[in-house]
Amino acid sequence: MIDEKFKIYGELITVGDELLSGRTVNNNAAHMGHHLKLAGFQIRWTAVVGDREEDIVAALQRAMERAPFVLVTGGLGPTEDDRTNAAVATALGRPLHRDPESWQVITNHLKKHNIPMTQPIAKMAELPKGARRIDLTRPRAGYYISHADKPLFFLPGVPEEMADMLKAFVLPTLKERFPEPITIRSQVLRIFGLRESEIAQRLAELDKKYSTVGFGYFPHFPENHLSLTVQASTATSADTILEEVVQAVVQELGLYVYGRGDDRLEMVVGRSLMDNGCTLALAESCTGGLIAHLITNVPGSSAYFDRSMVAYSDAAKTSHLLVSPDLISRRGVVSMQVAEAMVRGLKRESEPNIALAVTGLAGPTGGTPEKPVGTVFLALLSDKGLRTERFQFGGERQKIKLAAAYKALDWLRRAMIDESFFDVG
Amino acid sequence: MIDEKFKIYGELITVGDELLSGRTVNNNAAHMGHHLKLAGFQIRWTAVVGDREEDIVAALQRAMERAPFVLVTGGLGPTEDDRTNAAVATALGRPLHRDPESWQVITNHLKKHNIPMTQPIAKMAELPKGARRIDLTRPRAGYYISHADKPLFFLPGVPEEMADMLKAFVLPTLKERFPEPITIRSQVLRIFGLRESEIAQRLAELDKKYSTVGFGYFPHFPENHLSLTVQASTATSADTILEEVVQAVVQELGLYVYGRGDDRLEMVVGRSLMDNGCTLALAESCTGGLIAHLITNVPGSSAYFDRSMVAYSDAAKTSHLLVSPDLISRRGVVSMQVAEAMVRGLKRESEPNIALAVTGLAGPTGGTPEKPVGTVFLALLSDKGLRTERFQFGGERQKIKLAAAYKALDWLRRAMIDESFFDVG
Repeated sequence: MIDEKFKIYGELITVGDELLSGRTVNNNAAHMGHHLKLAGFQIRWTAVVGDREEDIVAALQRAMERAPFVLVTGGLGPTEDDRTNAAVATALGRPLHRDPESWQVITNHLKKHNIPMTQPIAKMAELPKGARRIDLTRPRAGYYISHADKPLFFLPGVPEEMADMLKAFVLPTLKERFPEPITIRSQVLRIFGLRESEIAQRLAELDKKYSTVGFGYFPHFPENHLSLTVQASTATSADTILEEVVQAVVQELGLYVYGRGDDRLEMVVGRSLMDNGCTLALAESCTGGLIAHLITNVPGSSAYFDRSMVAYSDAAKTSHLLVSPDLISRRGVVSMQVAEAMVRGLKRESEPNIALAVTGLAGPTGGTPEKPVGTVFLALLSDKGLRTERFQFGGERQKIKLAAAYKALDWLRRAMIDESFFDVG
Repeated sequence: MIDEKFKIYGELITVGDELLSGRTVNNNAAHMGHHLKLAGFQIRWTAVVGDREEDIVAALQRAMERAPFVLVTGGLGPTEDDRTNAAVATALGRPLHRDPESWQVITNHLKKHNIPMTQPIAKMAELPKGARRIDLTRPRAGYYISHADKPLFFLPGVPEEMADMLKAFVLPTLKERFPEPITIRSQVLRIFGLRESEIAQRLAELDKKYSTVGFGYFPHFPENHLSLTVQASTATSADTILEEVVQAVVQELGLYVYGRGDDRLEMVVGRSLMDNGCTLALAESCTGGLIAHLITNVPGSSAYFDRSMVAYSDAAKTSHLLVSPDLISRRGVVSMQVAEAMVRGLKRESEPNIALAVTGLAGPTGGTPEKPVGTVFLALLSDKGLRTERFQFGGERQKIKLAAAYKALDWLRRAMIDESFFDVG
C-alpha cells in the first residue's frame, strides 16, 4: 500500500501510440516507478496517451492540477508524430522558441559526424520558453521546467536515455526540492542456482524475523534477484538494519549469492580472473559464442580473456580443438567425452589458466530419448583439476543457450573461490 | 497516428499499487491494446491508479465522461486492498449487493473443493447493482455493466483470466455494440543502415500521398522499424492499400529494407545462406562472439554456420588465423591489414563459402587520435571477391559491439544479394 505518511506523490505521463496499441510494453513506467520509490518518492497516477496533441495537453493539465511533481516521457523526437513540445507550449502557455543550448549541442554533434541539418532535426531544438535542457553534451532530447513552483520533467522515450536522465538529473532534483522524504534503503542481491521457491523457503524465518523489511523476489531468468527494502526515519538506522539483514541473507544462502546491486555474473567472473591473474579460453558449441559475448561485454576483459573457439561444425572441433573424428562418431558430438576432449585440446592450443568447453543440443530438432533437446555437457580444466558434468535444461533454443552460458559463468566463478569445486563429479 | 475518422475509442483503467511502483510491468495494458486493435477498436487513453478508492473513482468518472467504452482491470480480488467494486458503487451510484449468480458459482466451487466460506471470499460476490457476471462456471471475478448506454467491463488483473474474458466476452460484446468497426491492417518494415530522420525525409512524399496511412517510426538500435497502418471499411480494401504502400516504400528505400514483421537480420542472413547453399565462418575480435551468438540464435543454423574464431588476444589471431605477429606490430591489431589477414587466414583454415572478420576498438580505453574508440574494420571474403572497410561507431562498449555486429550481418546479407557489393572500396 501507498504509505499515507508520505505525501510527495507524482504523476507520470507516458506518450506514444505504440503504448496504447500494445506494440510496446510500458517498461519505462515500471522503471521509473521502481527507481522513484527507491529514492523515497512515489508515482500516484500514470496516464498513457497517444500522439494526439490534445490528449497530451489534457493529461498535462490534469497532472498540473493534482500532482506535486510531473514526469513525462516520449514524443520529444524529430518526427511529425512527436508532439510533446507543442502540447507543453499549449498546456503551460509557454511558446516554443529555439533553445540556444539545444541548438549548440545539436549543431556540434552534426558537425562532428558530418551530418547535414534538416528540418526534423532542427525541430528538436524548439523548446517551450523557460525549459532547461538536461543533457548538455549529447544530442538527447529532455528538459526541465519549474512551472507554478512545480517541477516538471520531460524525458525521451528511449529507455536508456530516460534511465540515464532519471538517475543523473530527476532524482537529485526531486531530492533537492523535497528535502525530507522518509529514508528508504534497499539492496538487491543477485542469486544463481536456486529457484525462487527454494530461496523463499530458505529465507522464510528471516522474512518473519525482520518484519519491517520488505523481501521482494524478482526472477530474471536464469537468475533470481532478491530486493531487500528498509524504511526508517533516519538514514543511519535504515543503513544499519539493511546491512544486518543483507549479512543474514548472505549467511543463509552462501555461494548462491554471487553479487549485489548492478553486479552481473560476467563482471564477477572478470574481477575474479583479474584478481587471480588468470587467463581464460573457451570452446563453445551449443552456446554459439554467447559466453564469449557476455565475458567481452565487461570493459577491460582483454586483460584476461584470450579466445573462444566457437566450433559449431565437427570439422571446427577437429581442426582447432584436436577432437578426434573417431571419438565424435563413437560417442556423439554431444557427450561427456567430446566435452573433455574439447577442453583438453583448447588448453593444449592456447595455454590459458582456465579452459572451459561446452557442447550440447539447443534444438529445436536433433533430440533423442537418450539425449533430448537441452542436454548440455560442461568441462572445466585448470591447474587445480578437471570437472565435467551433464545438465538438462528446459525451454526453447535461446533459453537453453542462456541457461548453459550462465551455468558456465557460475562454474568459472566457483572454480576460483570454492575449494571443493573440483571434488565433485 | 490515430485516425480521426475512427471514433470508437475506449479508455483502459488498470488498477494496482504494484503497477505504479514498478514491481509489475503493465503487460495487461499491452495485451488489451493489441487485441482490441486487431479487432478494429482502439484504446485512446490509459489510466494507471493504485489501490486508493478515491483514485479509482476519479479515473472512472473521467473515463465515463470521454470514452465510448471503458475497460478496467484489477482490484476485484478478496483482499483488503481490492477496492474496485466499492469505487464502481460510488462512481456510478450503484450500491453493492450480493449478486445471486456470483454467490452460486462461488458456493458451488467451495463445496466441490471442500473449502469453508470466509468473509474475504464472500466479498467477491458483492457486486454493484446491475452488474452481470462474465464467467458463469468458474470462481473468476469479472463483470459487465451497461451504464448510460456505455459498455463497461471489469476484468481481473490475473493475466490469463483477463485474456480469456477479453477474447470470449469483451471483443464479441464490443462488436455487437459497435457493429461496423473499421478494419485495420498493419505491416512493420525493418530497416538497417539509415537514420530515422533520413527515412522520414525519403518517405516524406509517400507519407503525404497516402494520407490515410499511418507512418510510425520506431528506433530499435541499431535498426529502425517503420510501421504502416491502414484503416478501411473492408478487409479487402485495407489489404490492397497496405500492399500498395509497402511496395512503394520498398521501392523508395531499396536494400535498406531487410525484412518485414518479425524478421530479424540474422534470420534473413540465415535464410539466404541456406538458399544459396553457402557455409559461413567468422573471425571476431571486438564483437567478442556476438555475431556468432546472433547467427546461432536461429534454429537450423548448424546447417550453414561452421565456426567463429573469437580471437581476442594477439596470440589467438596468430595461432588460429595465421596473422603474422610482425604485421600486428607494424600496423596495429586494429587495422585494415589485420582485418584482411584475419579473413584470409580464416578462409584458408576452414574453407567456408563466405568468411568475415572484424577487428576494432570497443573501449572504453585504448583509443588514440588516429584510431579512437569505436574504430572498426570489417573484411569479407567469398568466391566473388574481397571487401574491406573502416567504420567509426559511437557510444559505449556494448553499443559499439552491437553496431559492428549488425553491420557485419548486413554485409553478409548484401554480399549474397547485391551485385555491386564487391565493387565498393
